[in-house]
Amino acid sequence: MILTLLTDFGLQDPYVAVMKGVMLQINPHLSLIDLTHQIPPQNVAMARFNLMMAVPYFAADTVHLGVVDPGVGGQRRAIAVSFAGGFLVGPDNGLFSGVLSQTSAIAAVELTQSQYWRTPNPSKTFHGRDIFAPVAAHLASGIPLTDLGTPIDPQGLVQLAIPPLTQEVNIVRGSVQAIDTFGNVITNIPATALTMANSVIQVEQTQLSLRQTYSDAPPGTLIALMGSHGWLEIAVVNGSACDRLQIETGHEVIVSHAPRPTDEPLFG
Amino acid sequence: MILTLLTDFGLQDPYVAVMKGVMLQINPHLSLIDLTHQIPPQNVAMARFNLMMAVPYFAADTVHLGVVDPGVGGQRRAIAVSFAGGFLVGPDNGLFSGVLSQTSAIAAVELTQSQYWRTPNPSKTFHGRDIFAPVAAHLASGIPLTDLGTPIDPQGLVQLAIPPLTQEVNIVRGSVQAIDTFGNVITNIPATALTMANSVIQVEQTQLSLRQTYSDAPPGTLIALMGSHGWLEIAVVNGSACDRLQIETGHEVIVSHAPRPTDEPLFG
Amino acid sequence: MILTLLTDFGLQDPYVAVMKGVMLQINPHLSLIDLTHQIPPQNVAMARFNLMMAVPYFAADTVHLGVVDPGVGGQRRAIAVSFAGGFLVGPDNGLFSGVLSQTSAIAAVELTQSQYWRTPNPSKTFHGRDIFAPVAAHLASGIPLTDLGTPIDPQGLVQLAIPPLTQEVNIVRGSVQAIDTFGNVITNIPATALTMANSVIQVEQTQLSLRQTYSDAPPGTLIALMGSHGWLEIAVVNGSACDRLQIETGHEVIVSHAPRPTDEPLFG
Repeated sequence: MILTLLTDFGLQDPYVAVMKGVMLQINPHLSLIDLTHQIPPQNVAMARFNLMMAVPYFAADTVHLGVVDPGVGGQRRAIAVSFAGGFLVGPDNGLFSGVLSQTSAIAAVELTQSQYWRTPNPSKTFHGRDIFAPVAAHLASGIPLTDLGTPIDPQGLVQLAIPPLTQEVNIVRGSVQAIDTFGNVITNIPATALTMANSVIQVEQTQLSLRQTYSDAPPGTLIALMGSHGWLEIAVVNGSACDRLQIETGHEVIVSHAPRPTDEPLFG
Repeated sequence: MILTLLTDFGLQDPYVAVMKGVMLQINPHLSLIDLTHQIPPQNVAMARFNLMMAVPYFAADTVHLGVVDPGVGGQRRAIAVSFAGGFLVGPDNGLFSGVLSQTSAIAAVELTQSQYWRTPNPSKTFHGRDIFAPVAAHLASGIPLTDLGTPIDPQGLVQLAIPPLTQEVNIVRGSVQAIDTFGNVITNIPATALTMANSVIQVEQTQLSLRQTYSDAPPGTLIALMGSHGWLEIAVVNGSACDRLQIETGHEVIVSHAPRPTDEPLFG
Repeated sequence: MILTLLTDFGLQDPYVAVMKGVMLQINPHLSLIDLTHQIPPQNVAMARFNLMMAVPYFAADTVHLGVVDPGVGGQRRAIAVSFAGGFLVGPDNGLFSGVLSQTSAIAAVELTQSQYWRTPNPSKTFHGRDIFAPVAAHLASGIPLTDLGTPIDPQGLVQLAIPPLTQEVNIVRGSVQAIDTFGNVITNIPATALTMANSVIQVEQTQLSLRQTYSDAPPGTLIALMGSHGWLEIAVVNGSACDRLQIETGHEVIVSHAPRPTDEPLFG
């Protein structure tokens, strides 16, 4: 059974390997696939974005383990969720809200059955090792979701505060859904929403037009382009758009019809 | 079946995982081995070098997927190649010319059979996901090479412009075959070609003698040494030989007999 | 069979993949798990620490391959060791002394049987490829330890010079067991040894008190805290404690009873 891992642990320390060891002791036949372990520390928005990007490409019986967990040891719930594309295991902090915005949750449980944990007295700082990894391994090995804990309302799972996309004829209102380590600003505006010719992108007080690639503009230029992930992205060539714009996840980004003509095609 | 992956995607973004998801949906029993995903962006010469270094250590039925693809969406061909050491799948941009300089291609096809792609309408920017990964997975699962596309002449595949090695009694003429991210300059001169005592290495207008290790010289010194990869390498201790010499892939490097005696042994 | 890998090779170069290719040719069914390949170059103390942290989480038939090998090509022995938690393969330079301080070695051999190597004439600089990887693969495939070489006394394996922990009622004397790439100083003092209220930590001439997290103090502050690995750690917030204290592996760290009252709880 395939089990994917996404964390902010990096690859230098042994923490990812520790989780793999725990899981392989439960089931040595698991096929463990790294989504990424280089989420910027505690950046739940970036983790949500990466999961949303990668999960749809995996088979519908895959278990996805996500551990980006700034609230570990506090009040946030530990959860497992089933959805049409498989299973999700991790903290209830909005990490899975991107995946679940594309495909609704079928059922969810709060992880309360400690017989599926590594120990009934888990570390306060490493639930990845003591709760999430063993639960994910049991789930990938056939333990039913409902055995893992107390049923909870999937509609009540934590959402990241990202205003949804709204589309009218001449204007699309979206928002920033994640900021990567390079300071590139990833919006929630998909290519399919950009049907207008001569689009003008407005973010904070700045207006900019759509380029086809980073190399279309000199270093230091603030540009908008379609990322290969399929979303409108705002970047500074060889720099940080986040620093330039002083922008955060959730901020508004508007695409509107340009009043002036241009020869630049919308997509390449 | 073993399938290796080499890209310039890095490990931070979900693109490698996306390709793995696509492949595992085609065949969940594939054994996926990362060669490296940290090729400097679009550095085909470094990708060619890494493939040439790693591929010979894998079994002769391995499929090697290489995606360093600055020409994606343009005119370059998408190819699959069979050779005595297995199979190669990726863009026809010279990426495989190192492997195929050691072991000739048996057959090659241009990837035109879209039933083996993820979609008949692939992304213009992510052929790794839509063409190369699914084709590699099908090939590793037993689909014959000839089913994947149109036969092409293996002799006509793109070569990187690296002048070949020439050897005479007292002089070996080689060239730079790759430059790594540290600025180390890797030549195409193998240890076996350095049979002369008292060798002098000449590159651009500079002459230097062979050292045994980096630690044989103080920081900032330009040195020549045999890399553990088995090729003559030119380096600056704690610095960049590429910056110092203003050198590029393909530039000439000459090894000749030294006129002056030295006590330094050629190899350690 | 599960086989883990720890090296200082990094993920950019093909050396890790080369070792995996060599092992998979011996046994294509091996399940290869990366512990880490980002040990700081030739940092045997950090490698020892990471192995000690990760190995206990793996099943007791796992083979652990460790290649951080500054003495390659010199006089250091190549070894394989059996212990209650599995098998260890690598250079005899103290790399395994952490694991073996927790669980004693059962038996050890010096690797002298070259029929289990990749070649009877191994490279002087890459024993990972030519000796350790193939031996580890054979061991994980069922070749008995005693077939791999000459029996040696497990008590005579190289130890890292880390003074052991000593505990009295009001004082614990420990030492630095590793320094990570961020300059964080990891001691050999476990949480369980810190039973005193109002602890004062002394290292070199500096005294400091225990904090609960990095965020409890402003940037540049020298702090002591329990790392998630379970050991007392000395750090500079957003800085390098190693640089600040000019400290090395083996240096003494003392925890004693504080003479002054404090409201700060020992653990969170």
